[in-house]
Amino acid sequence: MKARARTVHTYLDCIPCFFRQALRALRLAGADEALQGEILLEFSRRLGNFTPADPPPALGRELYALIRERVGKDPYREIKRQANREALALYPELKERIARSGDPLRAAVGFAIAANIIDYGAGTEHDLNAELERALRAGFGTFEYDAFREALGRAGSVLYLADNAGEIVFDRLLVEEILALGDHDLTLAVRGAAVINDATRDDARQAGLEEVCRVIDNGDDSPGTMLERCSDELRRRFADADLVVSKGQGNLESLWGARQAGLFFLFKVKCAAVERNLGLDRGETVLLRNPPPA
Amino acid sequence: MKARARTVHTYLDCIPCFFRQALRALRLAGADEALQGEILLEFSRRLGNFTPADPPPALGRELYALIRERVGKDPYREIKRQANREALALYPELKERIARSGDPLRAAVGFAIAANIIDYGAGTEHDLNAELERALRAGFGTFEYDAFREALGRAGSVLYLADNAGEIVFDRLLVEEILALGDHDLTLAVRGAAVINDATRDDARQAGLEEVCRVIDNGDDSPGTMLERCSDELRRRFADADLVVSKGQGNLESLWGARQAGLFFLFKVKCAAVERNLGLDRGETVLLRNPPPA
Repeated sequence: MKARARTVHTYLDCIPCFFRQALRALRLAGADEALQGEILLEFSRRLGNFTPADPPPALGRELYALIRERVGKDPYREIKRQANREALALYPELKERIARSGDPLRAAVGFAIAANIIDYGAGTEHDLNAELERALRAGFGTFEYDAFREALGRAGSVLYLADNAGEIVFDRLLVEEILALGDHDLTLAVRGAAVINDATRDDARQAGLEEVCRVIDNGDDSPGTMLERCSDELRRRFADADLVVSKGQGNLESLWGARQAGLFFLFKVKCAAVERNLGLDRGETVLLRNPPPA
Repeated sequence: MKARARTVHTYLDCIPCFFRQALRALRLAGADEALQGEILLEFSRRLGNFTPADPPPALGRELYALIRERVGKDPYREIKRQANREALALYPELKERIARSGDPLRAAVGFAIAANIIDYGAGTEHDLNAELERALRAGFGTFEYDAFREALGRAGSVLYLADNAGEIVFDRLLVEEILALGDHDLTLAVRGAAVINDATRDDARQAGLEEVCRVIDNGDDSPGTMLERCSDELRRRFADADLVVSKGQGNLESLWGARQAGLFFLFKVKCAAVERNLGLDRGETVLLRNPPPA
């Protein structure tokens, strides 16, 4: 096994990436060039208050909160609606394929991770289909499925931390599979405010999740789960859950190494920060158990 | 003709690019990760003092001066030496091809612009050869060669503003061709200090230019020609020259629209700032006359 850091800190390559993301979001939101420049330079000044020990979602929160505050609209609103619609169109076929599969839980886990490539609303439709096909075949990288299945078998309460819009429809497939396996008390948590293309209550509603399980928001606007910023309810459910399913890089970056023995991370490796901190390969489809306390 | 801005300001896409450049230079210099982080965040704070109206070389100067001051060495020293050596190995063959060409000045101009792809010390050797072949064929984009040739025919004094190491050997080919055409008083100017892979007095010496023409440095450490920061001699020669040959994007970005009727820009279009400000295409090989005063 490759060496894994105890925390996922902000890799220096994240910094140019945040500026690229900022420009993309500002252009999507239709901000004029003068406002784009002002916000980039203001973010640049604020960046000076962070250190590389802060996880990337802390910087992401600062950036997107600044954009929201100064531009006054959610740049990703339409992209998220579209991602939900497209994913819902795939739902019936995937539901059936899961049902027909030799190991429906494994198929649902594979689809849910594959859908984590829906990120930043990039035109990922074709990639998504290819990802889903790959997910049905066995080809995963780091995939601690047996441990996950065993932990789920023993679990009473489950907390499911969603990541992106669109992807959340595939989370519903996995949530339904988990609920079909036993009498789990399952809560799905989304972000407390619109940040990048992350799923909020609106997206959970659009994905039909409110009819399937308890849906809460985490009370915070970070693109991840920064526990110290989350609501009391989220923190309590996180501490008490027998199993926590953490989807995506943002949740991973903010929760890796947290005190939760039943925490599993399901994500695609999308950038150097995760690659280098955790010794994983870019593009890898990963199901990884939280490391035991040092 | 496409619309051209009156000045080349810092395009917002330059900002992520500067952070990428910073990381690259810091890693080349062997700075440890902690120092890399400190310098990136310090640059981020300083960036807040600039506005998009500043030309990119102003920000570049700030960044590379900070790296020089904190790391205490020139990250590009070896890369520059290597680029000079490789270019010198090509010199005899190109000299002969120019001599055999139907229009030697045109061939020398083409090679000199093609060599402007030697930038940031990226492994451009193969691209360089392809560029040189393209340069011998006629396929230029915006290429005001007739105006250039005519201006040169009338010029007594010529100021040649060099750009990068390696490339400066190809500048020597053009300088020699210019001197062969008539009794020009030609001065070649390099940067006043090491910044990125820009040519300094050392590089001019390595390229053998000191035996060919007068070589001065411009007294400044910007990766361009920021006149207000340059030596009195450079400013005087710039104002008095009948013809100014400006090589590369850095000189273009700092001099476009300057009060100099005999100013010609020779460069490859390498990024969005120049592309969008001047309405040119990425990759274009350009010989462009300075616009007349508004």
